[in-house]
Formats: sequence, structure tokens, C-alpha cells
Amino acid sequence: MKKFAVIVAGGSGKRMGSDIPKQFLEVGGKPVLMHTFDVFYAFDPNIEFIFVLPENQINTWNLLCEKHSFEFEYRIAFGGETRFQSVKNGLKCIKEDGIVFIQDAVRPFVSHQTLKNCYKTTVEKGNALPVIPIIDSVRMVNENGNHTVDRSKYFMVQTPQTFQVNLIKNAYQNAENDMFTDDASVFESAGGEIYTVDGNRENIKITTPVDIIIAEAFVKKM
Amino acid sequence: MKKFAVIVAGGSGKRMGSDIPKQFLEVGGKPVLMHTFDVFYAFDPNIEFIFVLPENQINTWNLLCEKHSFEFEYRIAFGGETRFQSVKNGLKCIKEDGIVFIQDAVRPFVSHQTLKNCYKTTVEKGNALPVIPIIDSVRMVNENGNHTVDRSKYFMVQTPQTFQVNLIKNAYQNAENDMFTDDASVFESAGGEIYTVDGNRENIKITTPVDIIIAEAFVKKM
Repeated sequence: MKKFAVIVAGGSGKRMGSDIPKQFLEVGGKPVLMHTFDVFYAFDPNIEFIFVLPENQINTWNLLCEKHSFEFEYRIAFGGETRFQSVKNGLKCIKEDGIVFIQDAVRPFVSHQTLKNCYKTTVEKGNALPVIPIIDSVRMVNENGNHTVDRSKYFMVQTPQTFQVNLIKNAYQNAENDMFTDDASVFESAGGEIYTVDGNRENIKITTPVDIIIAEAFVKKM
Repeated sequence: MKKFAVIVAGGSGKRMGSDIPKQFLEVGGKPVLMHTFDVFYAFDPNIEFIFVLPENQINTWNLLCEKHSFEFEYRIAFGGETRFQSVKNGLKCIKEDGIVFIQDAVRPFVSHQTLKNCYKTTVEKGNALPVIPIIDSVRMVNENGNHTVDRSKYFMVQTPQTFQVNLIKNAYQNAENDMFTDDASVFESAGGEIYTVDGNRENIKITTPVDIIIAEAFVKKM
């Protein structure tokens, strides 16, 4: 089936304490976003790519492309004010049915095995969500204080959140709300049932300066 | 107040796919357990240390001590079949009241700030649990399938879980059960209320081979 990848790079980098959005930070001498692209391109060079970029960062991106001789084919959609808007803008660029990987630009260490898991389950069931178990103990805070929860019932969600194109485009027709932290929650809110698959532990979301140290180490080792 | 640290190194290393228990693996040329000790010793050299070690690993530990000229004072308690038993054995070595840090041996990157937070709150309130927010989306699985939860209500728990000695020794008099994933859950099950403090994101639990790559990077950068 035709494959698409919407690489979501809408972030402004505030949590990094850096002026450069984290998707553009160089790790192992190359911007994070290019690493993320590389994994998908190596997995299948026929994927059609849509990069969702903040409109005010297009110049920076073009300069980076020149510097790193990044000369691949992709479309650009503009980021919105929220992740929901950004993904919606990205999905609008897709005009035919198929399977779409919706990927955080700041997750450059997704494995080919995770991509295979996502693709296979989406072909069979219409969607796939990569998750990993939580190693640490987990506590929940509510109006009665905080208490231990059974961590075996909880999973951390990664990307690419993968969907049959028409199904996820339909879900994104619904009104945005604050509970949408990812595409699965949008899909679910529109009545869809989500299927989980195994993610990979290296598939971290580069969010804080500590993550850059980790990312540098992963680039060297992998 | 008198400070104690129970460093819990009961694990057998099965999740690492390695014959060497993970607390003994060398990172930056030194066993993980010694890194963990170093942080606490640098924080306060007057802490009284109890190392909980698997009985069948004492020889290995002694050889490592010789190799690395590790010549500090500490007592050894034998690990039990579960973490609960191991911690209980460690606590038995403490004969006076004070404050005890119960620390996973495989968390060598706890910061002095986290230790300060734990100490201060335990002096004031009797216990302290270092936690960090969850960055990824979180899903919960139950009999109705899986669904998104509000991640702002959930926290990942780290160590040192810190307690006034007599309070936690009392809690460990209770019968063990399967829901005990950490000391806070034991304390809570005995009727105690838990107080959380800020942990630090580097304070990872070295559990899988990926964590060793991260740990090597942290040792170099910190």
C-alpha cells in the first residue's frame, strides 16, 4: 500500500533553553530532523514525505539543507499553533488513500522493527500505536493526594502513530480539545479503537538538554 | 540528623542479557554500584552505608573492590528473593533512628539537588519520594482495551526513597504483597502518606543494554 510520512516539526524549542528549535539541533553533526528522515528513507525510499515546519523557521531549514546537502523530495506544510493543527495541516497534503506514519521529528531513533510493526498492524487493522512498558514505579496524583498505581497496566506511547489515511483524516475533522496529546487520542475521541504494537526503547523524544547527551551517544553507537 | 543509605543491589541482571549483575557492570571503567556510592559519599561522607548484595555475588564484589581499590566503610546485608526482602534485610542493619535513603544501586546519576530535596522533606515530614513528570503520552490497558490517560496526573518514581528510619522499619514489618514495587508502596500500604519532591531526569534506572549506552554518555558529560 502507498506509504506517507508526516514528520511533525512544529516545536519552538522552549523546553531546551535554546533559540534553535530542537528538531534543528545538530546531533553527531546533523540536524535531528534529518536523522529522523534518514531512518524512514532507509526503511523505504518510496515513502512520500511531508515535513510540517514552523513558517518562521523555513529560512533556517533551507540554510540547513544547503549546509548538509540535503536534496531529497518532500512537501512542506506549515505548523499550526498546536500539534493538532500541525498534524492536520500535514494530512491535508495527502490526496490519496494509503498508510501514513505520523512521526515526531524529534524521535530520530525509531527502529526499522518498530516501523515494520506499525506498517503490518495498520494494513491488518487500520492503525498501530508503538508503546513500551514503564520501568519505573508510577504514581498518580489526584484530589486525595498521590498513590501507587499498577504500572503493568500503563504504557508509554511513541511515534510513528500509524493510520490508514482516510480514517485519520476523518478523525481530524473533529473539533480540537485539550485532551489531545497525540494522534491516537484524536482517533479515539472520534470513536476509533487503537491497536498497540511494540516500540523500541531507544525511540526517545528529544525534549530536554539531557536528551541531547543521550542522542549524541546513540548516534555514535548505532 | 544521622543519615543512612541502604544501597539495594539485589538484582541478577537477567534483563541485561548478561551474566554480570547490572550493578557490577563497568561504566566509564568503574562498576555502576561504585558510581552510585560516590554520589552519596560526595554529598555527605558521614552517611553510614549498607550495601545489599546477593549472597552468591560477594566474591565477585570483593574482586571488584580489589581491582578498583574501593576501600570505604560499609556494612553488607544479603539480598533476598524479592526487592522487599532485600530492603528489609538492609534496614535490619540500622540500630538507631535517623534518616535513611533507600537507593537502587543501578541509579548512579541521582543529583545532589535530588538528595537535598529528599533530606529536607524527610526532616520536615517523615518521608520523601523523588518523582519526575512523564514526557510521552501514556495509555492504560484494562479489560475494555486501551485508552489515553491524562499524563499530567502521573509521575515516574525514582530513588532514593527517603524515610525516617523508625517509620519505614515499622512499615516493613507488614506482610509482603505483589503490589510492592518500591518502598513508597510498602509505606503506603501500612497507612503512611507519601510526600513527593523533584527528582532529576538523569536519574535513570540502568535496566536494559540501551541504558548502558546512556550511562556511558552521562559519565563522560557529568
